[in-house]
Amino acid sequence: MAVFHIGECIRKTKQKIPLSKEEIRQLVQGVTAEPPIPDYQLAAWLMAVCFSGLNDEETAELTMAMRDSGQVLHWDLDGPVADKHSTGGVGDKTTLILAPIAAACGVYMPKMSGRGLGHTGGTIDKLESIPGLSTALDPKDFLALVRKAGFAVAMQTGNLAPADKKLYALRDVTETVDSIPLICASIMSKKLATGADHILLDVKVGSGAFMKNDADAAELARRMLSAANADKKDCTAILTDMDRPLGMCIGNAIEVREAIEVLAGDTDSELGIFCITLAAEILRMAGKGSPAECLHMAKQAVTSGAAMERFAMMIAGQGGDARVTENPALLKLSGCSRTLKVAENGWISAMHSEEIGRASVLLGAGRMTKNDAIDPGAGIRLCRKNGDAVQKGDALLTMYASKESQLDEAEAMLRGAVVIAAEKPAPAPLIHQTLTGPAADSAPKAEP
Amino acid sequence: MAVFHIGECIRKTKQKIPLSKEEIRQLVQGVTAEPPIPDYQLAAWLMAVCFSGLNDEETAELTMAMRDSGQVLHWDLDGPVADKHSTGGVGDKTTLILAPIAAACGVYMPKMSGRGLGHTGGTIDKLESIPGLSTALDPKDFLALVRKAGFAVAMQTGNLAPADKKLYALRDVTETVDSIPLICASIMSKKLATGADHILLDVKVGSGAFMKNDADAAELARRMLSAANADKKDCTAILTDMDRPLGMCIGNAIEVREAIEVLAGDTDSELGIFCITLAAEILRMAGKGSPAECLHMAKQAVTSGAAMERFAMMIAGQGGDARVTENPALLKLSGCSRTLKVAENGWISAMHSEEIGRASVLLGAGRMTKNDAIDPGAGIRLCRKNGDAVQKGDALLTMYASKESQLDEAEAMLRGAVVIAAEKPAPAPLIHQTLTGPAADSAPKAEP
Repeated sequence: MAVFHIGECIRKTKQKIPLSKEEIRQLVQGVTAEPPIPDYQLAAWLMAVCFSGLNDEETAELTMAMRDSGQVLHWDLDGPVADKHSTGGVGDKTTLILAPIAAACGVYMPKMSGRGLGHTGGTIDKLESIPGLSTALDPKDFLALVRKAGFAVAMQTGNLAPADKKLYALRDVTETVDSIPLICASIMSKKLATGADHILLDVKVGSGAFMKNDADAAELARRMLSAANADKKDCTAILTDMDRPLGMCIGNAIEVREAIEVLAGDTDSELGIFCITLAAEILRMAGKGSPAECLHMAKQAVTSGAAMERFAMMIAGQGGDARVTENPALLKLSGCSRTLKVAENGWISAMHSEEIGRASVLLGAGRMTKNDAIDPGAGIRLCRKNGDAVQKGDALLTMYASKESQLDEAEAMLRGAVVIAAEKPAPAPLIHQTLTGPAADSAPKAEP
Repeated sequence: MAVFHIGECIRKTKQKIPLSKEEIRQLVQGVTAEPPIPDYQLAAWLMAVCFSGLNDEETAELTMAMRDSGQVLHWDLDGPVADKHSTGGVGDKTTLILAPIAAACGVYMPKMSGRGLGHTGGTIDKLESIPGLSTALDPKDFLALVRKAGFAVAMQTGNLAPADKKLYALRDVTETVDSIPLICASIMSKKLATGADHILLDVKVGSGAFMKNDADAAELARRMLSAANADKKDCTAILTDMDRPLGMCIGNAIEVREAIEVLAGDTDSELGIFCITLAAEILRMAGKGSPAECLHMAKQAVTSGAAMERFAMMIAGQGGDARVTENPALLKLSGCSRTLKVAENGWISAMHSEEIGRASVLLGAGRMTKNDAIDPGAGIRLCRKNGDAVQKGDALLTMYASKESQLDEAEAMLRGAVVIAAEKPAPAPLIHQTLTGPAADSAPKAEP
């Protein structure tokens, strides 16, 4: 093995000279080695990456080296294993709907999730609004529940991609977060470590997402597919709209209620169609049939009640009160509420999801720093959505919080988040683009 | 004072948004504060500067903030005080000749110098080859000697620009040395802290210099003038050739010998003309007359013996054996020597100064790491120089070292450093360009 010089790696990346696979491996090993590569050298390298980029081979190797920095899971299951990752959205309860559908159709989904931070929520927080439910599962119990229900959702613990954890913490304080190759490696190292054969990536794009435009989102998606392919994993990336919140509810208990509404048969809502489409793509990847067959199968899983049954099994298996699936009112909303009215006639032309996400944090539904407590019953239910014709005085949305003062703060922010136009806006599709298969087949793009 | 966020500074520089003066001040204060800004954040900022650059105002403010991080000297002297800085060359003994000339003409030059590192030498090492001479002077003795002899040369000590010291150490290990604004701030913060009113900058350009081409050297010079002007200092920058060594000798005792040859009256050699030209520019800045008058005055200082007298006073004042000025043989050369002959007829078209400098290190005249000892008697005397017509068998150069094995090693390197061409090469002037006055008057250049 050649002698490793981190300075040489920094210099090469600075000058846009690609690093060898071995250099990338040694760099990542150095992140968690004892003694580690000093943070100041890693920080200089990360900043050089922000300017120079990394090519596809470097990005894939970085991803796999970070994956290999910790435990790589293997599932002892008798069917296909799939995973889904969202880059972070407002009102995104997709996992709660899609996983039971996939499970009902014979695809295992052992989900590791995180908590929400900032204006985007987290699946763990949402599930924990179900009375009694715990996401801190013993690995053995987790596997047993996945075997039985087809899916389970645990808080990500243990030693998955520790090099990513350390590099991410460093990126967070050195303004080096916004690099597509680094984002790709961070997301995919963890995804590949969770051991699924089929990975669906929901890349959010728009004002409320990390990727503000389709070009950046498509480039991130392309990189992630490329890294997945380098690891011989089946992967699809779907670019989905985050100029508006997903569905009508934003919060925790309130989002679980909305998920239950879909699983109870609301397959024609925008959210229902969205989740069924994504679930169908998972089924297709897992070899369950043609796209049309998979779409039919996914919808059937909802209309037959099979998906809801799986959802109830998961809740019960994680100690929660499964009666919520039949009686969503058991998911308590916070005591103070206020309904905002539409101020003028017209059409809703924008519902800025970042502001709506922030307003939900003000209501108590999210956290700005890691240690903030959240109010599971706080949140927002939208009565109208982008493109809807509205008249002055129509109910626009209802807020829920524990204190009136929170309603006041959130109201000010929500007033600015909704734009009423005099003309009907052009329709904005929820799914912008789907990228599948080997990355080489996707549209090639120049290095950043 | 606004709250300071280093992350905000990193982000701005990354996005090429200029930092305010206050942000730069606070950043530099944070370098040496307790607790300091973490190295990883400074490293990220330094790398961002390498890519984004800094504008003239930012560079000047960075320079002055670094100057103010430590002691700023003020000289209690009854005449103009000048300083000279060279960006580092091979065979550069200019200070030893120029300072006594300036002193003899009524300009004080309290010189703070450093040791050599790598292929370029340092004035302190050269002077210490004079028997008995010490450069570790007490500040009071230093000032007294400057008053008496007009100049003295002390090792840079104390607390000059400590922020530069720390940032430089960090740049050295994070591949962030090669940024013109950072180089400018590093050099000029120390120069401005030494308290001279008139500053002559000798910016070396060519294969043996840090700046490889005129454009980069001119940009560095322009930045340094701009920073000096921001501090209301009189400053001239001269771009001088470092494609070849300066003068005929490379080493320590051997360079002092060459300096004594010039001071003894060798005003027509390339080195003599060079030093007199630079000395005259210092006199001009110090208001001693027109350029022509100053040139005449500087030459007179040599031919009259006045400069040599000052040189001897400095040597004696620093405890050295001043008889060397009359008997340069007291400057002992190392015991082993070897003369290389010219291998073919033609013209010397190149004498690569970096290789010649490295060969001098192999001979023992320099150090590759800070703690290496040097052999004061080791070095090289060139018999021929670029542009000279040579015949096979002519003496090309003589090497001096303590061991035959060092001669062998250096010979191999020197053979490759000298190029003989069949045709007479175009003459290469030693002085490429002179930049004076307010930076705004100099040729403007785009940001890097």
